[in-house]
Amino acid sequence: MPLLTGARLATMTGPDRYGLIPDGAVAIEAGRIAWIGPREALPEAWRAEPATDLGGRLVTPALIDCHTHLVAGGHRAREFEMRLEGASYEEIARAGGGILSTVEATRAASEEALIAAALPRLDALIAEGAVTVEVKSGYGLDIDTELRMLRAARALADRRDVTVRTSFLGAHAVPPDYRGRPDAYIDEVAIPALRAAQDAGLVDAVDGFCEGIAFDTAQIGRVFDAARALGLPVKLHAEQLSHMGGTALAARYGALSADHVEYATEEDARAMAGAGTVAVLLPGAFYTLRETQAPPVAAFRRHGVPMALATDCNPGSSPLTSLLLTMNMACTFFRLTPEEALAGVTKQAARALGLSDRGTLAEGQRADLAVWDVEEPAELAYRIGFNPLHRRIVGGRL
Amino acid sequence: MPLLTGARLATMTGPDRYGLIPDGAVAIEAGRIAWIGPREALPEAWRAEPATDLGGRLVTPALIDCHTHLVAGGHRAREFEMRLEGASYEEIARAGGGILSTVEATRAASEEALIAAALPRLDALIAEGAVTVEVKSGYGLDIDTELRMLRAARALADRRDVTVRTSFLGAHAVPPDYRGRPDAYIDEVAIPALRAAQDAGLVDAVDGFCEGIAFDTAQIGRVFDAARALGLPVKLHAEQLSHMGGTALAARYGALSADHVEYATEEDARAMAGAGTVAVLLPGAFYTLRETQAPPVAAFRRHGVPMALATDCNPGSSPLTSLLLTMNMACTFFRLTPEEALAGVTKQAARALGLSDRGTLAEGQRADLAVWDVEEPAELAYRIGFNPLHRRIVGGRL
Ligand SMILES: [Zn+2]
Ligand SMILES: [Zn+2]
Repeated sequence: MPLLTGARLATMTGPDRYGLIPDGAVAIEAGRIAWIGPREALPEAWRAEPATDLGGRLVTPALIDCHTHLVAGGHRAREFEMRLEGASYEEIARAGGGILSTVEATRAASEEALIAAALPRLDALIAEGAVTVEVKSGYGLDIDTELRMLRAARALADRRDVTVRTSFLGAHAVPPDYRGRPDAYIDEVAIPALRAAQDAGLVDAVDGFCEGIAFDTAQIGRVFDAARALGLPVKLHAEQLSHMGGTALAARYGALSADHVEYATEEDARAMAGAGTVAVLLPGAFYTLRETQAPPVAAFRRHGVPMALATDCNPGSSPLTSLLLTMNMACTFFRLTPEEALAGVTKQAARALGLSDRGTLAEGQRADLAVWDVEEPAELAYRIGFNPLHRRIVGGRL
Repeated sequence: MPLLTGARLATMTGPDRYGLIPDGAVAIEAGRIAWIGPREALPEAWRAEPATDLGGRLVTPALIDCHTHLVAGGHRAREFEMRLEGASYEEIARAGGGILSTVEATRAASEEALIAAALPRLDALIAEGAVTVEVKSGYGLDIDTELRMLRAARALADRRDVTVRTSFLGAHAVPPDYRGRPDAYIDEVAIPALRAAQDAGLVDAVDGFCEGIAFDTAQIGRVFDAARALGLPVKLHAEQLSHMGGTALAARYGALSADHVEYATEEDARAMAGAGTVAVLLPGAFYTLRETQAPPVAAFRRHGVPMALATDCNPGSSPLTSLLLTMNMACTFFRLTPEEALAGVTKQAARALGLSDRGTLAEGQRADLAVWDVEEPAELAYRIGFNPLHRRIVGGRL
């Protein structure tokens, strides 16, 4: 029964800033937090336990990356380079660039190759205290590859001490063989692939990409109907580059989250609040695409829409594998406070995944903790490209 | 006599992209590169040596951070937080924020405390393949503390396997005791401190901050005259927030570099080219301050001004400790190519420090190498918050 003392606890609960307990103790039983509070209030029963003293270090909930495309074939470094060398969109497409190059590389990769490519990215997240990571399909765009991506994602949890949550993202892009026939793709591939993936027990949630370059609300609605019939929760890439109505659609389906949401409106924020839909902000994509329209943070605050943050880790628009940098970017670009940023990769990220057993430090929660060599929680968002993690504690294991 | 084979060499020399040698070998003698070239051209004399096979990994010159304020007391996380929570400039100043809070913390810190605080930041740079790091004074603003900062900077090279180059930056800000009397500060503190530091053998170059909130060209000119009298090269924080004429001044003094230079002009670029002055771009400060005016990269290219990149690692406007992220930001914000970005933290960074024995892979150069787990050099700038370093090789030691 591990007991942690000498911990400056950012519990992310209650009314205080960060839910801070300056000199705290945490008692762990069966992988859960059995007791947490100020050290001097530690119940008698625990006082005899051998304690691990954390030397006054900051302890937060382990980090959660609630939106990633961690499993993907290949990389797009040459495309990045060609663009900076002045190549046109056509030249890049001719050289095999764009999302379809990732689809091609993913289709060509074995499950083991997908796992091997994802592990260094996962390790980068783990090195910064992540324990729970969402991974999407969406680079297969055929039934076999979509399922292989999800199997690879799930297999990551056998290779590393993490929880993986999978989102089916068949409606990510229209593959070349269905060019100009998005409806046929939805009906003939996306929805059948979703059913097959669910049959194989590979799906935790269903995602889509609602955008001019992807699918409209009617097409996404059909995918969501299929999800609902299967009893699966939904989430959506919405309002990233334009206002398509995806956020309102997501709210109508009681979505766990609407992600990106740069072009969401006051009305959208109201709908999300009503539906309990989390806004997942992805500053890495905003940065890489050099967007100028920031998500409506003030409206989200006004209506009480929870804001989560994620890396969006993907080979095209956000080859980012640092949640700490994501926090810093959210503060810098979107003017989140450091406290909102930390909540965004803990408490609110858990909500965006529909997980109620993690993301805060409270009795009954999983004992997934991150221990940091910092004096105060704001340092986590303040530094850029610096990792002060002292250790991860996963399921209470020391 | 170490011999490296199986190396994809980015020599950063010659006309080819990255000076690439796809299947290269490097022979090392007495800490220097004795021979470098395609493996099949390896001279007979070397073929019997036991070789370390690098498995096809990319090898670049070790990275060089040519502009840092790595030695500093305290941090400014609470100031960062207060600003995001809506505090005004006055409220932050009243709470002890701003550069003067760093001056106060630095004055209060012992040499050993300054070293201890700098080491984690230095370790972050080292973890990404840095071997040479410039460190400035400038948070003492009194003679004792300026010298203590420089001694702490030099001491870092005893604690880690790095080369430290020190820049005296007495003309960084006007301290409270000289408020409104910048000329008196220059004459009574900055220049005497420079002479004392040079007497103590602590100075490699002399820097200044030419800006409305710091010193004008006449004041900087007096510091540069003192540097010239001491036989020391100069460099300057110039044209960061406005056009003050610092770049032209720096060029007139044959400065090693003019740094920031967001507001430099075509004319400035011409002057820098004529003087051989390197433009040191600092995208971390551009990012943190949310600047919109990018440095005149096209003019620098047109006139052949070498562009270096650095972290500017400082507690206020750039708490950044990643040269890889600096490269990515330079590509994203300033549209440098990945090749320019890599040259910026190797070859051109060496020039900005007046070092001709490093920064490229060529015979006679120091055998300071970085070995990377990447397929192609563009990946170094493409990824965000990911460190593919396999190993550092310092002075040829394996
Ligand atoms: Zn995404
Ligand atoms: Zn500086």
